[in-house]
Amino acid sequence: MATTLFTRIIEGEIPCHKVYEDPQVFAFLDIGPLAPGHTLVIPKHPVERLEDLSEDSAAALGRALPRIARAVLAASGAADYHVIQKNGASAGQVVPHVHFHIIPKFTDQGLGVTWKPGELSSDDGRTMAAKIVERLA
Amino acid sequence: MATTLFTRIIEGEIPCHKVYEDPQVFAFLDIGPLAPGHTLVIPKHPVERLEDLSEDSAAALGRALPRIARAVLAASGAADYHVIQKNGASAGQVVPHVHFHIIPKFTDQGLGVTWKPGELSSDDGRTMAAKIVERLA
Repeated sequence: MATTLFTRIIEGEIPCHKVYEDPQVFAFLDIGPLAPGHTLVIPKHPVERLEDLSEDSAAALGRALPRIARAVLAASGAADYHVIQKNGASAGQVVPHVHFHIIPKFTDQGLGVTWKPGELSSDDGRTMAAKIVERLA
Repeated sequence: MATTLFTRIIEGEIPCHKVYEDPQVFAFLDIGPLAPGHTLVIPKHPVERLEDLSEDSAAALGRALPRIARAVLAASGAADYHVIQKNGASAGQVVPHVHFHIIPKFTDQGLGVTWKPGELSSDDGRTMAAKIVERLA
């Protein structure tokens, strides 16, 4: 199992501002916050990308997110927030260890998102859905 | 329990390109895709925001994400992707029913992200972490 920067944080070799820990999940403040309260929620199991995470580890992460989000909102005073998780260099992933960002949204701070939706045609939708379903079978 | 657009999709009143379903989770193609394969993964339980989702429902969502992500990557041919989930109008949430977007990243298609990190001082980190930990206690 590869050791990542985050493994060393979990193990206490590198200091962090820890906010949460359970047997499978660890959470701490991002040192380059987009807004106050910006928190990283990670699996203890060191896996680079979400699609390679075990179902158990992913379920534990999912389970912890609402609770941590509530605490981040209360502590930061934000009303709204984003959860974002990046996979691969072209998506902006830097540390090769799955991490969900919880990022409080304020008027002038938080995640900036550019959303340029296309339109899903009936044919494209049918074809793509069939391909995904086939892979899930 | 409020009925949302997504509840009507889950119940088949409104058609969709479904890709996945289990007892607690439903997934289908976004009709305004940022890239081919753009998929929404939602809890069947109609809750508006992630922080209000039950731990069970959130765990079921987390558990399904890696598997669906693998299928979306295989079907779309993308190497990289984002997972994003928005809470509240100021974060860009439109449908009041928790949804995780899986968005394949291509050179010219996918989620656009603006990342303007600050720097977490030792004092700010200590103070904020203590507040979050207090709320989690």
